[in-house]
Amino acid sequence: MSDILSALGDILEQRKNADADSSYVASLYHKGLNKILEKVGEEATETILAAKDAEHSGDNRDVVYETADLWFHSLVALAQLGERPEAVLQELARRFDISGLEEKASRQPK
Amino acid sequence: MSDILSALGDILEQRKNADADSSYVASLYHKGLNKILEKVGEEATETILAAKDAEHSGDNRDVVYETADLWFHSLVALAQLGERPEAVLQELARRFDISGLEEKASRQPK
Amino acid sequence: MSDILSALGDILEQRKNADADSSYVASLYHKGLNKILEKVGEEATETILAAKDAEHSGDNRDVVYETADLWFHSLVALAQLGERPEAVLQELARRFDISGLEEKASRQPK
Amino acid sequence: MSDILSALGDILEQRKNADADSSYVASLYHKGLNKILEKVGEEATETILAAKDAEHSGDNRDVVYETADLWFHSLVALAQLGERPEAVLQELARRFDISGLEEKASRQPK
Repeated sequence: MSDILSALGDILEQRKNADADSSYVASLYHKGLNKILEKVGEEATETILAAKDAEHSGDNRDVVYETADLWFHSLVALAQLGERPEAVLQELARRFDISGLEEKASRQPK
Repeated sequence: MSDILSALGDILEQRKNADADSSYVASLYHKGLNKILEKVGEEATETILAAKDAEHSGDNRDVVYETADLWFHSLVALAQLGERPEAVLQELARRFDISGLEEKASRQPK
Repeated sequence: MSDILSALGDILEQRKNADADSSYVASLYHKGLNKILEKVGEEATETILAAKDAEHSGDNRDVVYETADLWFHSLVALAQLGERPEAVLQELARRFDISGLEEKASRQPK
Repeated sequence: MSDILSALGDILEQRKNADADSSYVASLYHKGLNKILEKVGEEATETILAAKDAEHSGDNRDVVYETADLWFHSLVALAQLGERPEAVLQELARRFDISGLEEKASRQPK
């Protein structure tokens, strides 16, 4: 499960040197930060709408899909600014006092 | 690095049975989905503003912080709807053809 | 200056009976409330980005343009729900204790 | 009905010279453009949520109220940047080819 975001961070870095028309991510970089941030705003709205619809339908597929879109575009914005996904994970770990060492320890056989 | 989101998913589940005044997350659950989604919208806006300021200042600390806030509140929304962080990661892995097996293979000594 | 929003309200009502491909507004109605609300979210983000750019450039043209887009799409959402622009103006007048000559006239003893 | 937005524009200008603690608008100006734009983002989200709830309940009061909040905060942002509500109305009039009687009058030869 775990290293998906690191692998995605690698992909986002590789696409920085690509031609604008070689991939969706490369085209976003070339359009610039405003276009990337417009996508963050769009995907936040779509996540909110999908969550409201899930509340009534009980079907979570769209809200999971839109949340993935939201995270993805926020990672493209961070990549444009020179940051990797690990920076976000470290901030979350810091807040909730989550550390890899504790987790490993808790998984030890008793 | 890796299992931070799974650990956060565990924390978000545990807080579901907590009193509303025992933690921030418990209070969000009790306020209901609309309040949680308002926070998603707020944090998306703050992420966008922080990214614009980082563009001019070159200091990425706030935009990393706000992105963590955005992801966190989107995970609270998903938890309220019964979904875990792994569902988002799986969707991202599916799109980018990232799989744990390939990653493991690529880490093998050559 | 004044009755622009009322005239726009009339236009938005007329387009309700139009074919989906006859105008942009008619196509929005046919796509449904979610698509209209996605546009409200998009235009809010574009307004915020344009205001940040105006802060640095001193040129307000884009932020005025995007605010008009935001108001317009929020009026399409209200029209879809059966409300006219005057409802928003009355709410603003109520809050700020603004009353026009017409309103004063309507309060005259009969 | 008509000149409510112009009257609101006057109020927003007057509050620019007021102490930060004298009114809500004055406090927003003192907090600066980012705080005002955060409110624009918040109110856009609340408008979207209220519209989704109106879709199910048939009660439009909240969505009208939140739209007024959204317009109001976008006017505070424009006022901070030195623009009046009339600029937004003129842009809407231009797009929809709306001209009021008053405007026609102003184009009469003198």
